[in-house]
Amino acid sequence: MNKASRKGEAIVLLSGGLDSATSAAWALAEGYSVTAISFDYGQRHRIELQAAKAVANDLGISDHVTLAIDLAAFGGSALVDQSIAVPKNRSEDVISNGIPVTYVPARNTVFLSLALALAETRNASSIILGVNSIDYSGYPDCRPEFLNAFESLANLATKSGVQGTHLTVLAPLVSLTKPEIIRLGLSLHVDYGLTTSCYDPKEGGQPCGECDSCLIRAAGFAAVNIPDPRVTAFMASKETNCGSDC
Amino acid sequence: MNKASRKGEAIVLLSGGLDSATSAAWALAEGYSVTAISFDYGQRHRIELQAAKAVANDLGISDHVTLAIDLAAFGGSALVDQSIAVPKNRSEDVISNGIPVTYVPARNTVFLSLALALAETRNASSIILGVNSIDYSGYPDCRPEFLNAFESLANLATKSGVQGTHLTVLAPLVSLTKPEIIRLGLSLHVDYGLTTSCYDPKEGGQPCGECDSCLIRAAGFAAVNIPDPRVTAFMASKETNCGSDC
Repeated sequence: MNKASRKGEAIVLLSGGLDSATSAAWALAEGYSVTAISFDYGQRHRIELQAAKAVANDLGISDHVTLAIDLAAFGGSALVDQSIAVPKNRSEDVISNGIPVTYVPARNTVFLSLALALAETRNASSIILGVNSIDYSGYPDCRPEFLNAFESLANLATKSGVQGTHLTVLAPLVSLTKPEIIRLGLSLHVDYGLTTSCYDPKEGGQPCGECDSCLIRAAGFAAVNIPDPRVTAFMASKETNCGSDC
Repeated sequence: MNKASRKGEAIVLLSGGLDSATSAAWALAEGYSVTAISFDYGQRHRIELQAAKAVANDLGISDHVTLAIDLAAFGGSALVDQSIAVPKNRSEDVISNGIPVTYVPARNTVFLSLALALAETRNASSIILGVNSIDYSGYPDCRPEFLNAFESLANLATKSGVQGTHLTVLAPLVSLTKPEIIRLGLSLHVDYGLTTSCYDPKEGGQPCGECDSCLIRAAGFAAVNIPDPRVTAFMASKETNCGSDC
C-alpha cells in the first residue's frame, strides 16, 4: 500500500511504539508516500529501534532512515540518563515540578527539526507524528499549540517557506484516547505484537509492566477488551522456555 | 571574563567562524555565563571544529560541548554533499531557485533545537547565535522572523514554558554589516586569526579565497582597512616553508 502518493510525500516519525506505528499506518491509508525516520538518541529502551525496523518492514515502508544523535550527552531525563530511575507503578517521582522525569529535554523539537531537514531534501510536504496530548499531558512538546508553532516555524525556516509552498505538520492521534488509537490501528491491520512501548524493558525486550508507558498501554488494551499481542508473545515464549516446570 | 553571570546562563552556538566568535565574545562582555556548543554535522569544512575549540579556549570558555549529528546522511547541500561543488567567485550556480546551494536544509532549526535541549538541562535562559541577515540574505533560517518564531516555539516546547520562565533567543549580529561585526569583535579583543570562514578549505585549512564566505570575509576586512589575520598567517607560513624560492 506504500507509494500510492495521492497526497504526496510525507516524513513519518517512527519510534517503534504503538502510537507511531498507528500514525504510519494512517499515513499510508490516507495515500501519502511515506519515508520513515527513527532516532538512535541514547535511549535506554533501544529495543524500540528494532521494533521500528520491524514495523516499517511490515507496513511495506522501504525508505526508512535511522539517525544517530547523542542526546544522552546532555542528560536530564530518566529515558537517557542511567543515573535517574524510571518511575514504576505511578510512584510519586513520576512527576518533578509538573513534568514527568521521563521527559527528554526538547526531544520533539529536535526530532521535528531533523524530520524537517529530511523533508526538505526529499521535497516532502508533510511531517506526520504520533504524539498524543491525552496520555502525555505532562509533556510540553506533545501539546497542539506546540505542533502549530512548529508548523509556523517550519514554513519560515526552509526553502518551502521562501518559495511559497507549504509544509504541514500532522498529528492524527493528538486528541485520541489510547483505546481509540488501538481501535484505529486494528482497523488498519497494525501488528501491535511488533511494537514496544516500555521505557525500561528487561533483557530481551520484555516489557517491565510497571512504568508509566506500560501502564497506559495495558489500560488501553484492557479497554478494547483484547490481549496485548506483545505481552502475549513474551508470556508464550516464557511458557515454551520453561516447559512443564512453569 | 567568563562566568561573571550578571545575566545568567547562556548557550552560545560556536561554529569557529568570524561571526560566532564575535557573538561569543559579545555574550561574555554582556555578563552571560557561557556554555558553547559546536556541531560536527558532516561539513566539508571540518577545520572549523578545531577553530571553535581554539576560540573557546582563547575566550576562556571551559564548558564547550561538540555534538555529532550526521546531516550529510540527508544530502542536498554543497556544504555536506561532496557531489555538489562549492560555487567560486560568485558564479551563477551560487543560487538555485533563490537559495544558495551552500544552504544546509533546516540547519539553524536543527542547531537551535539542540541548543534548546542543552539550555533546558543547564537551566540556561538564553540562546545566543551569530546569524546575520545581511550577508546571508538567501538563507531562510537567518531571517529575524525565523528567530522570533523559534523563540516562540522554544517557550511552548520546554519545561520553561510550562513553568512560566522565559527563554530568549539573541542574535546580536543579525542587522550588522560585516565591517561592523569585525569592528565589534576587535573592540572585544577577538583573535580573528583563530577563526575560519571558508566553505571549501585547502589541505591544512588554508582558505580557498574564492567561495562566497571567503569573498564576504575579505570584503569585510578590506572595509575596515586591516589585513585578515587568518590569511596573513597562511601567507607567512607559506613564505617560511618555501624560503627564498618563493
